[in-house]
Amino acid sequence: MIRDIIAKKRDGKVLTSEEIGFFTRGYADGFIPDYQAAALLMAMYINGLNDEETGYLTEHMVRSGSTVNLSGIKGVKVDKHSTGGVGDKTTLVVAPIAAASGVYVPKMSGRGLGHTGGTIDKLESIPGFKTSLTQEEFIKVVKTVGFSIIGQTENIAVADKKIYALRDVTATVDSIPLIASSIMSKKLASGCDCIVLDVKLGSGAFMTDIKNALKLAKTMISIGENAGKRTVCLVTDMDVPLGNHIGNALEVMEAIETLKGNGPKDFTELCIHISGAMIYAAGKADNFDSAREAARKSLESGIALKRFRDFIYMQGGDPRVTEDYSLLPAAKKYRDVLSDGEGFIRRMDCKKIGVASMELGAGRKDLSDTIQLGAGIRLNKKTGDFVNKGEVLAVLYSDDEEKLDKGEALLKESIRFGSEPLPKRSILIAAVDAEKTEMFSYPE
Amino acid sequence: MIRDIIAKKRDGKVLTSEEIGFFTRGYADGFIPDYQAAALLMAMYINGLNDEETGYLTEHMVRSGSTVNLSGIKGVKVDKHSTGGVGDKTTLVVAPIAAASGVYVPKMSGRGLGHTGGTIDKLESIPGFKTSLTQEEFIKVVKTVGFSIIGQTENIAVADKKIYALRDVTATVDSIPLIASSIMSKKLASGCDCIVLDVKLGSGAFMTDIKNALKLAKTMISIGENAGKRTVCLVTDMDVPLGNHIGNALEVMEAIETLKGNGPKDFTELCIHISGAMIYAAGKADNFDSAREAARKSLESGIALKRFRDFIYMQGGDPRVTEDYSLLPAAKKYRDVLSDGEGFIRRMDCKKIGVASMELGAGRKDLSDTIQLGAGIRLNKKTGDFVNKGEVLAVLYSDDEEKLDKGEALLKESIRFGSEPLPKRSILIAAVDAEKTEMFSYPE
Repeated sequence: MIRDIIAKKRDGKVLTSEEIGFFTRGYADGFIPDYQAAALLMAMYINGLNDEETGYLTEHMVRSGSTVNLSGIKGVKVDKHSTGGVGDKTTLVVAPIAAASGVYVPKMSGRGLGHTGGTIDKLESIPGFKTSLTQEEFIKVVKTVGFSIIGQTENIAVADKKIYALRDVTATVDSIPLIASSIMSKKLASGCDCIVLDVKLGSGAFMTDIKNALKLAKTMISIGENAGKRTVCLVTDMDVPLGNHIGNALEVMEAIETLKGNGPKDFTELCIHISGAMIYAAGKADNFDSAREAARKSLESGIALKRFRDFIYMQGGDPRVTEDYSLLPAAKKYRDVLSDGEGFIRRMDCKKIGVASMELGAGRKDLSDTIQLGAGIRLNKKTGDFVNKGEVLAVLYSDDEEKLDKGEALLKESIRFGSEPLPKRSILIAAVDAEKTEMFSYPE
Repeated sequence: MIRDIIAKKRDGKVLTSEEIGFFTRGYADGFIPDYQAAALLMAMYINGLNDEETGYLTEHMVRSGSTVNLSGIKGVKVDKHSTGGVGDKTTLVVAPIAAASGVYVPKMSGRGLGHTGGTIDKLESIPGFKTSLTQEEFIKVVKTVGFSIIGQTENIAVADKKIYALRDVTATVDSIPLIASSIMSKKLASGCDCIVLDVKLGSGAFMTDIKNALKLAKTMISIGENAGKRTVCLVTDMDVPLGNHIGNALEVMEAIETLKGNGPKDFTELCIHISGAMIYAAGKADNFDSAREAARKSLESGIALKRFRDFIYMQGGDPRVTEDYSLLPAAKKYRDVLSDGEGFIRRMDCKKIGVASMELGAGRKDLSDTIQLGAGIRLNKKTGDFVNKGEVLAVLYSDDEEKLDKGEALLKESIRFGSEPLPKRSILIAAVDAEKTEMFSYPE
């Protein structure tokens, strides 16, 4: 039976819902071995899945696990997902902003792997903070503060977990239908009413061209809307690391500074766009523009910061970190990286900077690796800035001298200088919903 | 590293010899797991391999095992391979004919699986016959009789064995480059100077259209010639079972009858074509026609039969079976299958007849199954014959009544009647060598 399904997709034919369900159920239950799943995934990768097949795959992956019941929370609940970037501490800022604007955000997040970080790791750098709550505790925090962030529970989209791990080792990761169904299966199982997706585009992201990014956005929106969830997607720039801090405790600091109104401009703007999209998707504003205005007010009024403090407190963490960063873990050593070149920074290889941060100890090569919560990078200069020879490009943090060596080499490699300044570009590239695609900037 | 190789073939790029060797070595040694091999094989199946890649794959599979050293045999050594059919006892006849015509045939054969039988199983129905000889014994039989047939040794083309088993369960079997490299890796490791390939075409074979059969032929010839072996390929008809007997002892009987000059016409003709190709490939005749004449003489003179008797004797079997078929194992029960229909047989589903024979006990579903050496089918009527209602279509042999039921149902299903006779067709469809393709008949 599974051999016939593999042969059908191998020959470029369209699979039925039953056939896709047979695969996801059989693989989750262990009746279908890895090698048959690998052959089918490669056939899906090369020959593709149409929108219906992608929807079936998502649906069956949702059914392979349990679904979170959030009916105890009266009000519109919004989930948010980013396709992963470097220095992406967005959730820490947009969840309190959206909550402060009347939207519930019950959020489950993951850990970092490879060059991208994970929200759960970042939160664990706050002393005492618990990322694992019972269902009741989770709902109580959401009801009280307006949002909560916890680790992904084990039994959500079980088939997706197994399939994702297999894709990772069989070169079948970057397929739009496979990415879309993987992300959306977790979002549909999360029990929210609306979904806001942030598709990262650029050298630090999975998606490196605008056509594919828009295709991924539309595929996910179609899955979400067909499942009865209002789904909005932003395409945002990930050609430059987000903000100036990369690394767990370092990013918590920068998120707090942003909530205080002192954040880097690019990152603050992104947070306004995403929390605006959340407010808009939840129906709390007539249009995207007024939703962004509401988000800006929640940030500028300090209400979002207060929500963040309450959230830390309710999840067992020490809320004084918002005033005293010395309570956060710090690396034992640091090093200033001095510029060998001079001129305008034309390009920063964002992925390489993510790898540098991982090598410094802030990330994992393998899910079993332990991380240094204080390790990471503070960028003094970013794309477009003018740099003199000998000026400090960045400060690296790590517990180990040799990790600093590796990080320094990678960071220097990641930067390319030029004699001309770069035109300013907007961090928001496109906003897409079921009805229309609005383009804000056109990356080349 | 292997992930990069998978990604490269996934994207339709051409792999280097080093990359293909990394895969075969890693997979044979167990460093590369089944699931990564399965993903790569599916990518190879869908995106194909060019002639150079197919050659590299063959070469590396040869290197993954040992090579038979036949330098002790002075003279031209020819190997022969058929892509597998129903009722295919050809080796038992062509090896003695070629040997009687001055060509050495040191042949390693396989066991049957699924609807196709294996030469080794057939030979084991001869009382006392040994299919497992030492290298020295094997060479001694070849030197003395002119040919020997033994079981495939375990350590030939080790990577191919593992890859073949994986292809079987991942729907990656019927790919021309994968089939060609699998066959040729075993042929190149067998140590012969020349190779004759019999590509079966039709309902009982892997190849069901002439274009693919010719493509497979040319691919194998290119691999063989590049490795310095004279390689000739025949494309022959497998839309009808070969001869009238299917099953192990039954086929030995029919092979002996053929060596006595009393064989079915279609099968005798095929044997003349193939042994002729062997004589031609070995350079023992100026052209294919005169080679076939030489083959016919060896058959008609009775020298080939004498060689077959000597071969049985030298491999420990009882040569009196050539005169007394009651020495061969017989099934406990038999059944006449009477025709429900009337008219000309328009079509016999050859694969289904192969399955019927397997169900009767003559074959294996799984390599661990045991077989009934006396079980099988004797066809009284074949495609093109006129059949009256109630006439005996075939006689089935098995030790079990219920197997006879299953076999009868399958046999009846396999036959389609019509009111018109069929045009006669030649069993030889094409003869292909490095220089030219000669077409003898054009199947629709």
